[in-house]
Amino acid sequence: MSNILETINSPADVKKLSIAELTQLAEEIRARLIVGVAKTGGHIGPNLGVVELTLAMHYVFDTPTDSFVFDVSHQAYVHKLLTGREKLFHTIRQPGGLNGFMLRTESEHDSYGAGHAGTALSAALGMAVARDMSGGKEHIVALAGDAAFTNGISFEALNNIAAQTKRLIVVLNDNAWSIDKNVGAIAEYFHKIVTNPTISSLHDRAADLLERFGGKTVRHVARKAEEAAKGLIGPGTLFEEFGLSYFGPLDGHNLPLLIETFNFLKQQNKPVVLHAITQKGKGFQPAIEKQKKFHGLGPYDAQTGETKPAGQKTYSEIFAESLTKLATRNEKVVAITAAMPNGTALDLFRPHHPKRYFDVGIAEEHAVIFAAGMATKGYKPFCAIYSTFLQRAFDQIVHDVCLQNLPVVFCMDRGGLSGDDGPTHHGLFDISYLRSVPNLVHMVPKDEDELADMMYTAMLHEGPSAIRYPRGTGPGVAVKEQPVALEIGKAEVIRDGADVAIFGLGAMLPEAVRLAEMLKLEGFSAAVINPRFAKPIDRDCVGEFGGRCGLVITLEDHVLAGGFGSAVMETLNELELQVPVVRVGWPDAFIEHGKVESLREKYGLTAEAALERSRPYLSKLMEQVLAKH
Amino acid sequence: MSNILETINSPADVKKLSIAELTQLAEEIRARLIVGVAKTGGHIGPNLGVVELTLAMHYVFDTPTDSFVFDVSHQAYVHKLLTGREKLFHTIRQPGGLNGFMLRTESEHDSYGAGHAGTALSAALGMAVARDMSGGKEHIVALAGDAAFTNGISFEALNNIAAQTKRLIVVLNDNAWSIDKNVGAIAEYFHKIVTNPTISSLHDRAADLLERFGGKTVRHVARKAEEAAKGLIGPGTLFEEFGLSYFGPLDGHNLPLLIETFNFLKQQNKPVVLHAITQKGKGFQPAIEKQKKFHGLGPYDAQTGETKPAGQKTYSEIFAESLTKLATRNEKVVAITAAMPNGTALDLFRPHHPKRYFDVGIAEEHAVIFAAGMATKGYKPFCAIYSTFLQRAFDQIVHDVCLQNLPVVFCMDRGGLSGDDGPTHHGLFDISYLRSVPNLVHMVPKDEDELADMMYTAMLHEGPSAIRYPRGTGPGVAVKEQPVALEIGKAEVIRDGADVAIFGLGAMLPEAVRLAEMLKLEGFSAAVINPRFAKPIDRDCVGEFGGRCGLVITLEDHVLAGGFGSAVMETLNELELQVPVVRVGWPDAFIEHGKVESLREKYGLTAEAALERSRPYLSKLMEQVLAKH
Repeated sequence: MSNILETINSPADVKKLSIAELTQLAEEIRARLIVGVAKTGGHIGPNLGVVELTLAMHYVFDTPTDSFVFDVSHQAYVHKLLTGREKLFHTIRQPGGLNGFMLRTESEHDSYGAGHAGTALSAALGMAVARDMSGGKEHIVALAGDAAFTNGISFEALNNIAAQTKRLIVVLNDNAWSIDKNVGAIAEYFHKIVTNPTISSLHDRAADLLERFGGKTVRHVARKAEEAAKGLIGPGTLFEEFGLSYFGPLDGHNLPLLIETFNFLKQQNKPVVLHAITQKGKGFQPAIEKQKKFHGLGPYDAQTGETKPAGQKTYSEIFAESLTKLATRNEKVVAITAAMPNGTALDLFRPHHPKRYFDVGIAEEHAVIFAAGMATKGYKPFCAIYSTFLQRAFDQIVHDVCLQNLPVVFCMDRGGLSGDDGPTHHGLFDISYLRSVPNLVHMVPKDEDELADMMYTAMLHEGPSAIRYPRGTGPGVAVKEQPVALEIGKAEVIRDGADVAIFGLGAMLPEAVRLAEMLKLEGFSAAVINPRFAKPIDRDCVGEFGGRCGLVITLEDHVLAGGFGSAVMETLNELELQVPVVRVGWPDAFIEHGKVESLREKYGLTAEAALERSRPYLSKLMEQVLAKH
Repeated sequence: MSNILETINSPADVKKLSIAELTQLAEEIRARLIVGVAKTGGHIGPNLGVVELTLAMHYVFDTPTDSFVFDVSHQAYVHKLLTGREKLFHTIRQPGGLNGFMLRTESEHDSYGAGHAGTALSAALGMAVARDMSGGKEHIVALAGDAAFTNGISFEALNNIAAQTKRLIVVLNDNAWSIDKNVGAIAEYFHKIVTNPTISSLHDRAADLLERFGGKTVRHVARKAEEAAKGLIGPGTLFEEFGLSYFGPLDGHNLPLLIETFNFLKQQNKPVVLHAITQKGKGFQPAIEKQKKFHGLGPYDAQTGETKPAGQKTYSEIFAESLTKLATRNEKVVAITAAMPNGTALDLFRPHHPKRYFDVGIAEEHAVIFAAGMATKGYKPFCAIYSTFLQRAFDQIVHDVCLQNLPVVFCMDRGGLSGDDGPTHHGLFDISYLRSVPNLVHMVPKDEDELADMMYTAMLHEGPSAIRYPRGTGPGVAVKEQPVALEIGKAEVIRDGADVAIFGLGAMLPEAVRLAEMLKLEGFSAAVINPRFAKPIDRDCVGEFGGRCGLVITLEDHVLAGGFGSAVMETLNELELQVPVVRVGWPDAFIEHGKVESLREKYGLTAEAALERSRPYLSKLMEQVLAKH
């Protein structure tokens, strides 16, 4: 047979296919995903799981008239392949290429962008209500994984759906995994449904019946399933209690069954949930065997699934190892993750201290309050939450932790530009939103060893603190055996200087050093300071160098608005020092995905750009320097 | 009988009382609440509803060894009366007096502070897990209203409880109201339980049995209730699905029944939910009749419940009236509240546009995503959420609204110091956390009419915007018939000046004018600028005055860290202007409750304090001024 995928230019082409052709297309898509993502890296596992679901949705519904809202939307690759982006698929997550998530500006078929879990039902409900008000007839379909239901927003939405619309289709894509294995009652609840023999046989029978009666019986089967739901063991009771009609569970890889079911569901005059059971990584054995690894990853071998051997340790690994050591020394240390044991590397901590490891699900707000509760009883919780995800717990950081001055430690992985994942995952706001909060200490290490010292410092500190560190590897500095406690609010002078003071925060310190070298070549004596603390700022240090030098330059892997440079300016202002400041950081715009290096270059986060930006002050400064001598 | 309340110095005294004495004490507490709060203002309705619950809890449990976590904790007045604070109760919410919420620094019996809903289960779970790890035996009791279950955090906690502890007591205080009447499926679900005749009779029978068998039968009744729960109609199925054992519903005003039940529950080796039905405002007819009004209010007449006739319109009312007008003109305008129709005054909007009014429950995250969903379909949602509560939706503002550049309008009531409610309700961070977010326009009106203009401007603007306005009344400026659109990012020069430029943001503008007058008396020509926009800052205006004047002074009802003054400094910095700046605003500390006026004085947010702060620059400036002439 010829290649069908190449002939799909829009969802209209999908609708022309026979079931046999659709089945072939599914296989072609799988092959394309496995080979394509092997080169680009990306969320291969989740996408292999939704091939048939996505095909069936595009077969039955009509985007962009109808709207699909994908929770997190890292499982939208198949959707991208079917909506005119097949030719560009090799560019996914590459600089200038397709985004790894849904993006409204990328295609009219991407009706809603996402990147953080739990938002699909709320967004879809907003669309459904808007449609109802406008008298529209289009369908709104929300596709959400089981993990989305460990997040509270999904329940806030469930609480509103039945009261606000009669037409909304929720697809529960149940693969029993989020990024890691799901935790908590909801996961067990879904699992109970799936493993119940009555339901399993019903599910098999549905397929049988469908086969025997030529697809005309879905309505009947669905009704039976509904009866079963209500009379026998109550799968879906949870949804029914929220006023949604529950259908399923169905085999999420059975194309004809899915198509019939969607055709049935689109005629309903009530909000519905379709519970589809899928296999994450389906069709690619390495991804089935190593679900965690193949949730999302860098390039791999398309045959074996092998990835390049790990080289230098990442900041995440250093974090996990350091925490393991601290926990061994101090029995009050506990670790909390919001469904990211792999990403945060806490899965390395877990075997050593299994009882002091807590994965609370994709529930950042709960994670922070839970930590605060533990802290009231004398524990020292380390919350490992990416900078971008911690935005979800801002209010809890303010109220539960900082207002009560409780010693919770926030370890913010992916602080700074995250690179390939793009704007939904960059961690560029944490200094701005955290440094306005009283009592909080905000630290940024220059290297791996300093991260370990900061964690130790945080453990000893009696109030709340946060540490941000970048994605991936650092400069590769070995972690010393015994961490040392840093003085809170004390910067480190890397090299002294008389004319220019360069504050290079965290990952930007090497650029600060390079900049100092470049300034030296031009005849300036430039000091380089490792600030260590974005809050409290080292007033003495800022005062000394601000008073002595004719120019202050700050470099940060963070937005400029309200960021570290701004904090330095505030300090100079409070000290009544009038010294020019050049602030280098990310501009007031959402930064696209791409390689960190090239994006830094593009947006001027380099020593060269800093030097250029400093030019207006340097000639005047040279006069002063010459006058000094 | 003598006054019992006066003899209660600690919970130990409660335990000595007979049932008859406890019943009398309950009445005394009610009288004390009604008369006391009549003078101080406060959350009278919720507290009248939990008198017996709180008494029974203190009778059975032992704080501070045992821990009570009250959701929101505005219903902790009875608890305060019973834990050694009776003599100070007349000072509640008064400057220097008791806080209106639980406060860890106020009493060892206040094990956890709160102020925003939905946090109790998470905090209590943290405590319970910590207790288990330490091998402790103490009890953790979370008291949460039904409204807390419209918030997603409660579900995030429910998802974790059964897996993490065997000993946690959740009391569902069900009065079918939050601040306003509850909305959504959860409210209906709880209501269904309560109104079911089987359960109602069971509930009556429990009381009967208790009476007849001298209180020994609670265990039996509880078991019966549990059976009923599972076999008959399934009250509490929701909780059971999350692995908690459900008991109830019980009459939350029946002291003996509550005491027996708590004694039973404390022996359980599994997490339990007790569903207690209470009446908000019980014992005070005006509070029962006007639940909304008496949720929380200022002083009232203790006999009649009458409050002083409304005088000048509040900002909230101006907001609601303006939105009503906009909605009449533009059918795409919709209003969204997160359970605050009264506080935001949207209940004035509702009768005019009932189909364009959405109360989504205490679900700020959902509210914002729901708004974003509507905006994708061409609607113009106005989300009326207090500044302090909007902190809960920071991530959704970043991702769902601003990253997608959707035209959602955030109307942030209580922007600035909120006064009596204290640190949990001050809205002092919104400029810091919002101005780092790309695409967002942040506006602050100087008066009522400008608020109307800003709302009109926001309606016309094609991207996201936020407007912050203070609690209570403004200067009393009449709103003109037809609003005008303001130029985005354009400040208003109130009076010109050559020596000093004073930027008085929003509510601080009158102080800016006073300061200008004071400076004039000292021989300075001071310009006064109404910035209107905290983002984008008017660069031309800042450039012009920064270039012309020898001193810039900024005044804001906001923290200084990352605030408006900092934004002005950033702008001056970008314009390469070296002019001294004096920033006046709230310091880097949590501000206690009190009168706005006196707190402003205490912390130096006055023209006088600004003048003092400017002194170091003024003498040098005078030399320049004299030199100019």
